[in-house]
Amino acid sequence: MEKLKENKSFDGFTRFYEFDSPSTKTKMKFSTFEPKSGKVKKAIIWLSGLTCNEENFITKAGGQALLCEKDVMILCPDTSPRGLDLPSEHDSYDFGSGAGFYINATTKGYRDHYQMYDFIKNDIVNILKSEFGVERISIMGHSMGGHGALILGLNEKDLFKSISAFSPLANPINCEWGQKAFKGYLGENWKEDAVKYDATFLVQNGANHPLPILIDQGTSDEFYPEQLLTQNFETACKEHNQKVKVNLRDGYDHSYFFISTFLKNHIDFHLKALNV
Amino acid sequence: MEKLKENKSFDGFTRFYEFDSPSTKTKMKFSTFEPKSGKVKKAIIWLSGLTCNEENFITKAGGQALLCEKDVMILCPDTSPRGLDLPSEHDSYDFGSGAGFYINATTKGYRDHYQMYDFIKNDIVNILKSEFGVERISIMGHSMGGHGALILGLNEKDLFKSISAFSPLANPINCEWGQKAFKGYLGENWKEDAVKYDATFLVQNGANHPLPILIDQGTSDEFYPEQLLTQNFETACKEHNQKVKVNLRDGYDHSYFFISTFLKNHIDFHLKALNV
Repeated sequence: MEKLKENKSFDGFTRFYEFDSPSTKTKMKFSTFEPKSGKVKKAIIWLSGLTCNEENFITKAGGQALLCEKDVMILCPDTSPRGLDLPSEHDSYDFGSGAGFYINATTKGYRDHYQMYDFIKNDIVNILKSEFGVERISIMGHSMGGHGALILGLNEKDLFKSISAFSPLANPINCEWGQKAFKGYLGENWKEDAVKYDATFLVQNGANHPLPILIDQGTSDEFYPEQLLTQNFETACKEHNQKVKVNLRDGYDHSYFFISTFLKNHIDFHLKALNV
Repeated sequence: MEKLKENKSFDGFTRFYEFDSPSTKTKMKFSTFEPKSGKVKKAIIWLSGLTCNEENFITKAGGQALLCEKDVMILCPDTSPRGLDLPSEHDSYDFGSGAGFYINATTKGYRDHYQMYDFIKNDIVNILKSEFGVERISIMGHSMGGHGALILGLNEKDLFKSISAFSPLANPINCEWGQKAFKGYLGENWKEDAVKYDATFLVQNGANHPLPILIDQGTSDEFYPEQLLTQNFETACKEHNQKVKVNLRDGYDHSYFFISTFLKNHIDFHLKALNV
């Protein structure tokens, strides 16, 4: 693990790292905010959305001000492998680079590198444990990253103590973004594999997290309700006894201005779950 | 004045505007955060640094969280005219586009548009008064924008109720950035004109603001002390009875991570001066 850059922030440090990912077989970058105590033992993983990288959240969301007095770090991974040139990898904003969708690809070319589910579940979790001494982890994200937080949290409920999401793709099998990604990463017969990567289907099929799931969704979000389908997830949760709290926020959109407004609620939710 | 975009933020709005500037004879952009009350009557102008535009502060500094409960708006103008193609205008990061230095140019070509001192003093102040109903204004900025806040605040003490700066170019006549800009905007005999655009010389020549001036400077800032010369300004203030508070911040650099860390102190300082 190599530290690329650090900026003192709120008495702690905003840092940028790179490491050789066993899952993607590429170098992968992530950013952190590490509060001054230096002995955190608890972490929140932030998963970003389409077109983002490891920089967006840590420069725009204002999380440092909320964590600086706590013994909790935040870690924000990049959203796909970089430096490759796979077929169609760089042709569109919603597939390939910047759009890993936090799933393990099985299609030719992509299956060798786009193992983004394992990248988070194994590589990032291992880095947190071995390099930072973290013992308890929560997970959150935005849009495509909200989808990632939901599926990783529901599938790996022993690993992630709490789950929250801003404007998540909550039922990607039934939206254009999800269908395009699943087809590209999982092939023509994607529907069988995709159910383990769809939060709504996971809950319908019995996945269950012991804590309530927190979701914030802006009502003026241009992608709501067609692409995000929060309503489908909420219905599935109600029918299958998964506790969920969906806050519809009047007039808010899909941007980081929305995220920064309600980030404190989400951080507080995770701090409570992490016993801070 | 045309509203280009708005994002609901902290119960108010982050907005982006464009208008025809009488001073620059171009369209000019600025951003705002307007708290929910809608009747602000008080404003802080934020002046950004080299390479920045109207977006940097409003997306990265976290100011919305600090102003959302107050009846005070913030306005962040772009740092130069845009859409022109003057000689050498786009050749370097520290002169021309993105580097207006908040002065009125007198050199050929530039004098027709680079009237950035008047743009702030007249156009932006008029917009605040006529479009937003603002009655009291304070001014702050970063780096080149810190220089802008100091010279505008010292020269126009009746207009700007309080002045603060992060990492300002506090004595630009004596640093490379300032000398290059003054030569380009004011011509070969720039030294005579430049004294009214140099905070240290202004104080030495008798300019005085009734309130203390607040400055934060990181000690790990790569441009401190050679380019920024805060120490020269502090000495001049002490010798000429201008009250100044310079906070040297151990280990902090020149970035927005530094600004966001200490922004609350600056906002509180201006709120007090604006009688909020």
